Amino acid sequence: MSMKVVFLGTSGAIPTVKRSLPCVVIQRGNELLMMDCGESTQRQMIKAKIGFHKKTKVFLSHLHGDHVLGMPGLLQTMALMNRKKKIEVYGPEGTEAFLRCVQESLRFGLTFDLEINEIHKAGTVCVENDFSVEAVASNHVAPSYSFAFLEKPRPGKFFPEKAKALGVPKGLLWSKLQHGELVALSDGRLVKPREVTGAARSGRKIVYSGDTKPSDDFVKFAFGADILIHEATFDDSLAEKAELDWHSTPSQAAIQAKKAEVKMLALTHISARYTDSTLLLQQAREVFENVVVAEDFLVLDLPLGE
Amino acid sequence: MSMKVVFLGTSGAIPTVKRSLPCVVIQRGNELLMMDCGESTQRQMIKAKIGFHKKTKVFLSHLHGDHVLGMPGLLQTMALMNRKKKIEVYGPEGTEAFLRCVQESLRFGLTFDLEINEIHKAGTVCVENDFSVEAVASNHVAPSYSFAFLEKPRPGKFFPEKAKALGVPKGLLWSKLQHGELVALSDGRLVKPREVTGAARSGRKIVYSGDTKPSDDFVKFAFGADILIHEATFDDSLAEKAELDWHSTPSQAAIQAKKAEVKMLALTHISARYTDSTLLLQQAREVFENVVVAEDFLVLDLPLGE
Repeated sequence: MSMKVVFLGTSGAIPTVKRSLPCVVIQRGNELLMMDCGESTQRQMIKAKIGFHKKTKVFLSHLHGDHVLGMPGLLQTMALMNRKKKIEVYGPEGTEAFLRCVQESLRFGLTFDLEINEIHKAGTVCVENDFSVEAVASNHVAPSYSFAFLEKPRPGKFFPEKAKALGVPKGLLWSKLQHGELVALSDGRLVKPREVTGAARSGRKIVYSGDTKPSDDFVKFAFGADILIHEATFDDSLAEKAELDWHSTPSQAAIQAKKAEVKMLALTHISARYTDSTLLLQQAREVFENVVVAEDFLVLDLPLGE
Repeated sequence: MSMKVVFLGTSGAIPTVKRSLPCVVIQRGNELLMMDCGESTQRQMIKAKIGFHKKTKVFLSHLHGDHVLGMPGLLQTMALMNRKKKIEVYGPEGTEAFLRCVQESLRFGLTFDLEINEIHKAGTVCVENDFSVEAVASNHVAPSYSFAFLEKPRPGKFFPEKAKALGVPKGLLWSKLQHGELVALSDGRLVKPREVTGAARSGRKIVYSGDTKPSDDFVKFAFGADILIHEATFDDSLAEKAELDWHSTPSQAAIQAKKAEVKMLALTHISARYTDSTLLLQQAREVFENVVVAEDFLVLDLPLGE
C-alpha cells in the first residue's frame, strides 16, 4: 500500500512566512494519520490537496497552543463539508475539555462523530487490522507524547513465474497465495504460499517525536524506524536554551537517530528565528548522514520494501 | 495621520489556497483596529509585516468559528513575544467564555492585560481622543454586529503663507494655530486660527459589515463612509441561498453602498467556490462604480482629505 509523509507545518511556537505551525500527515492509501494540528492545518490541507473526507485519526502530542489550535477550525470545516465518517482524536489528558469547550462556546454542530481518546500512559494507542500506533512519554514541559506508527509485517513478494511453473492458474488462486493461503489445484496438488512468495516483509515504521529533549526511552521507542521525524527547535549554539525549554538541537536529534539506527531523519519544529535552515542541516549531518530539514509541503514517499 | 485598511483574510467559512479566513485591519498611525480574527490571522500579520506590539483593539462581529478562531493563537504569539501593552477585545455575548475557556484548557499565560468587552446592544463601543467605534446589530443568524470606525473632525488645513503674511513666526505659534488655539504675537496683535487655516475637515469613516443580509438600518449606519467593507459571500445567481444563510450578494452589497452614498465599496467574505472573482466584481459594478473585490493583502490607503 502506498504511503507517504506530508509535512503541513514545520515551525515551532510561532509561524513564519514560509512555515506554518506543527502538523505532519501520514497518508496511507486513503487513510490519514495526523500528528499534531497547529493553527491553519485546514488551509495547509487544502494547499496540499489532502481531502477532508478521508478516514482520519489525529494524534496530539501535547496541549500547547501551537500544536492543537488548528483542531477546532478543521472540525468545523469538515462539518461544513458534510463529512460523515467518524474522526478519532488521541491526545493527553485535557484534550476533551479543550475541544468540547471550543465547540460549546462557539456552538458549532458536527456532521460526524468526534471520538476523543485521552492517553494516560505509554503503550498502544490504537490497533487496526494492519497497523498500530504506540505512544511513549516525551521529555517536555507539559504532559507530552511521542508517537510511532507501526505497520504489521506484510506477506512476502509474490513471484508469478514460480506460480506459472507450478501450473497455478492466474486469478483467485494467485491472490490467495499472495495472502498466505494454501490452495488446491484442479488436479489435486496442493501449493503452499512459500513456494511462490519470498519471506514475509517487515512493516514500515514512522516515529514522530513531538516536542522533546533527548532521552534513552525515546531511542528504544524509535529503534529501526524508516523515518524518524524529530523536533530541532534551536541550533546547537543554543543548546542551553533548548535544555531550559525542553527542546532538542539538530545534533541531539541526529544522535538519537544514530543510536536508534533509523533509516532517515527529518527535522521539524524549527524556531521562527531561522529564515535559512542550512546551519541546522549541517549540524545534524555531521552526526547522521541521511537527514533533511523539513519544509512545509515536503513529501517523503515510503517504498514498500522487498 | 496616515491610515490604511489591510485585508488579511477575505474568504468566508472555509479558507482557500488564495484566501485566508476573515480579518481586516485598520492601521492608523501606530495603532491597529482589527475587524474579526479568523484562523491564521497571526501568520497573515507576519506576512503583511504588521507587528505584534502595537496598540490594538479587536472587534469580533460574531462568534462563528471562521471569524474568531485566530484569536487564541494571536494572543499566545503576542505573549511569546513578550507583549506588554493591553489588548482590548470587543465582541458579542459569549466572547469572554470562548477566549477564557481556550486559555484555561490550554493553560497559556499572557504577558499583557486582556480586556474583554462584550457588546449587548447597538451604540458606541469605544471612544478614544480622536475616534470612536460604533456598532449596529447586523442581519445574520447569530448575535452579530457591524462596526463603524469614526474619526473625529480634524482641524482645517494650515496655510503657511497666510501665517507668514500676518507675521506669525514659524514654530510653536504655527503649531498652536494648527491645533485651533488663538495666539498673541510679540507686537500685541491676536491671530485667530481661522485666519490661517481652512474649514475643519470631517473625520474619516470606515464601515465593516461583518456577515449580514441587507437592511435599512445598515444603510443609515454606513452613510457617507469613505470605505464600506461589505460581505458578498455568494454571487447574484445564488441570491436564494444567500437569503437562507443570512448573507449578501455583490449587487445587494452594491445597492447598500449606493443608498449609503459611500465613496468606495470593498467586497470580502468570498465563498470558497469562487476561484476567480471577476463575476462578483461585474455584478457589483453594474450598480456601484467604485468597487473592488478584496484579495488577501490588499491595502487601501485613506488620504487625509482637504
